[in-house]
Amino acid sequence: MNRHEHGHRHHDEAMLSVEDALERILDHFHVLDSKEVPLLEALGQALAEDAVSLHDIPPLDNSAMDGYAVQASSIGNASEDSPITLRVVGSVAAGELPDTAVEPGTAVRIMTGAPIPPGADSVVPFEETDEIERRNAALDMAEIGIKIAAPVGSDIRPAGQDVRKGTLVLTAGTVLRPSEIGVLASLGFDSVKVVRRPVVAILSTGDELLDPGDTYSEGKIYDSNSYSVAASVLRYGGAPKMLGIARDNLDSMNAKLREAMEADMLITSAGVSKGDYDMVKDVLAAHGRIAFWSVRMRPAKPLAFGVLDAGDGRKVPHLGLPGNPVSAMVAFEQFGRAAIHKMMGKDGFLKPRIQAVLDEPIYNTDGRRVYARAVITKQNGDYHARLTGNQSSNLLTSMAGANGLAVCPEDTPVKETGEVVEVQMLDWPEDVF
Amino acid sequence: MNRHEHGHRHHDEAMLSVEDALERILDHFHVLDSKEVPLLEALGQALAEDAVSLHDIPPLDNSAMDGYAVQASSIGNASEDSPITLRVVGSVAAGELPDTAVEPGTAVRIMTGAPIPPGADSVVPFEETDEIERRNAALDMAEIGIKIAAPVGSDIRPAGQDVRKGTLVLTAGTVLRPSEIGVLASLGFDSVKVVRRPVVAILSTGDELLDPGDTYSEGKIYDSNSYSVAASVLRYGGAPKMLGIARDNLDSMNAKLREAMEADMLITSAGVSKGDYDMVKDVLAAHGRIAFWSVRMRPAKPLAFGVLDAGDGRKVPHLGLPGNPVSAMVAFEQFGRAAIHKMMGKDGFLKPRIQAVLDEPIYNTDGRRVYARAVITKQNGDYHARLTGNQSSNLLTSMAGANGLAVCPEDTPVKETGEVVEVQMLDWPEDVF
Repeated sequence: MNRHEHGHRHHDEAMLSVEDALERILDHFHVLDSKEVPLLEALGQALAEDAVSLHDIPPLDNSAMDGYAVQASSIGNASEDSPITLRVVGSVAAGELPDTAVEPGTAVRIMTGAPIPPGADSVVPFEETDEIERRNAALDMAEIGIKIAAPVGSDIRPAGQDVRKGTLVLTAGTVLRPSEIGVLASLGFDSVKVVRRPVVAILSTGDELLDPGDTYSEGKIYDSNSYSVAASVLRYGGAPKMLGIARDNLDSMNAKLREAMEADMLITSAGVSKGDYDMVKDVLAAHGRIAFWSVRMRPAKPLAFGVLDAGDGRKVPHLGLPGNPVSAMVAFEQFGRAAIHKMMGKDGFLKPRIQAVLDEPIYNTDGRRVYARAVITKQNGDYHARLTGNQSSNLLTSMAGANGLAVCPEDTPVKETGEVVEVQMLDWPEDVF
Repeated sequence: MNRHEHGHRHHDEAMLSVEDALERILDHFHVLDSKEVPLLEALGQALAEDAVSLHDIPPLDNSAMDGYAVQASSIGNASEDSPITLRVVGSVAAGELPDTAVEPGTAVRIMTGAPIPPGADSVVPFEETDEIERRNAALDMAEIGIKIAAPVGSDIRPAGQDVRKGTLVLTAGTVLRPSEIGVLASLGFDSVKVVRRPVVAILSTGDELLDPGDTYSEGKIYDSNSYSVAASVLRYGGAPKMLGIARDNLDSMNAKLREAMEADMLITSAGVSKGDYDMVKDVLAAHGRIAFWSVRMRPAKPLAFGVLDAGDGRKVPHLGLPGNPVSAMVAFEQFGRAAIHKMMGKDGFLKPRIQAVLDEPIYNTDGRRVYARAVITKQNGDYHARLTGNQSSNLLTSMAGANGLAVCPEDTPVKETGEVVEVQMLDWPEDVF
């Protein structure tokens, strides 16, 4: 089997642009159905229905400070030098309902978050009263001296200030981050309907492959694509279903494809080029449709895309990545990631992109868009990109060193040292740079 | 209980800087012990031991193309116009070991990735031979016409080109992304030793709290902090252990703290200010040490940090977040996240930071560093920050709308519209902007 893409001497007739290939692929994906899950499990998923508040948040007018609830008119002239003394008629803590009303000349001791008692229209913080002096002097705590005037509404948080009852708080389609999870909890939801995660079947093909953990055997190589792709699927929120390795025979391929029918998507690697042993394509064609494309990109020019007939009328889209480890990952980032986002209801997501100064040139020898593995660092406020050495698509270690893909456009023969290029960040590592 | 931070009228003596607070906190955290996990589960964790290659990758000299393995000296004068005919003595596919040697005047048909046969020193791709013409003309395939000269080494990938046997490929401490997972698979590892994930106990306190899913009761509020914090813990790679709500009494607090002793860290929210009902701090002090800090930041000035004695000599660090939902999240981002990263062996990680132009001012009324909730968009190549409305720390919906925290430094009374500020990105949503 031809596990690898064709080299630069193979001149393809009609190459698809990356954008055209992406559009054709995404046409076959749709937002998945929804599923009710416990609130925490919903992290990272898209809300499948609007979340409406059944209550005001906060539910009642409440105090923003620890202090005394009063009528503003009772303390109109109070000052540090001539405090006004009020009679303390009760106290209220957060979570309690007040059982005493405030009348002219009286106050209720109140804690932050506690409901404002009937009759009160203002809160005076402890610091603006003589409470500490009274305590220290062992004076009567049934009275309190107020040292400031406070306008109506002072330090009162009105009911519904954050959310009014009946408000549409989060719309269907919102992707749930920790803050949205918190908002849903504050609305009282302990579970929530979200677009379910796609199950992505992952298959490698080839007689030369060993599973990691297998005893080493001369001339064989360990399958890395299944793992780098599965990890990428996980990272973008999908559920990988590892099918393992299909051998270069009809029975093995057919058995694996039957397992793939239960998934929402199949990703294979290798077996999609124009070599002698590409029986894979025949098997795929027998189970549905498969097209072999040349995409105007480097690495990852050869790409296959098809649809498997699951038998029950259901279609399972199939993305066939190139066999070279770097090509497989770069093609996954451009096409597989977008498909997963679309199935999860995150339409339109793009990788974070930055502009970086090149510390070394990127050459484009044959009119394809080059995604060069790069290490991005920040120097004096500017992003800089240096390449991770040999850019051969079979060198996976060069991918492991990279945190971005620096782009040289199709129509540009070279981006020179010092030129600014666009970089797709592979990850934003929260790292110091 | 005082669930909320003190307001602007409470002037604290000695406030800690964010940096000092972080340093004091991180002093109590250490890299956790390691654990062997299946390869895919290791995604996002730090490698706990060096990964050394036991084999060359690729294992043998192999072909970069589908073509014919030859001796370069056999085809020294070959050209399109006067091809040189060689005798085809065998074929070899990827994963096979060659059983025929190449001698002067002979060739072995070879597929990409297949080992180079003994005697061969060069590969000629199909495209540079007359193979297709021969097939079309039904000619003898025991011979092949070569149309180019190929220097020694052409289209041969040497053994060990990616990784040489014995090479230290990934050092202990490397955080495993999909590409590193792929590299470990290519080395033959199906499991790997990583720094284990911290178990983070999460506790809310207060009689006024309801668990999400509980029947609504007037004057009560649903606990959101446990969920927003737990989701943040998950996001940064920790394993949240939800302890639920401790009520304002000794028995309830003691029972919850005993559960917390089994975790690597305890995070509480509320109960750490200077209010009347703060029995929490007494209980905490009885189980270890607890300090109450004022941090020079807004929101989230009040912060508690302590150490629980687990009884067996083990110490469980305890981070006490403020009760206000936004304060809890902002304080978690500054302190809790760093602690989790340190336990996971990801020392020195920082949030991604960008420079953004302010579309509205940020005011700093009392010499604290302001973390303003902001929506960051890209306009004509520049990042712009607008605030999410009311910045009160009790308004969680203002956090849900934000994707960054725009910073106004401690010593700056205002950052005006049009000024450039630093923004901590809360997330980098892969969104279109």
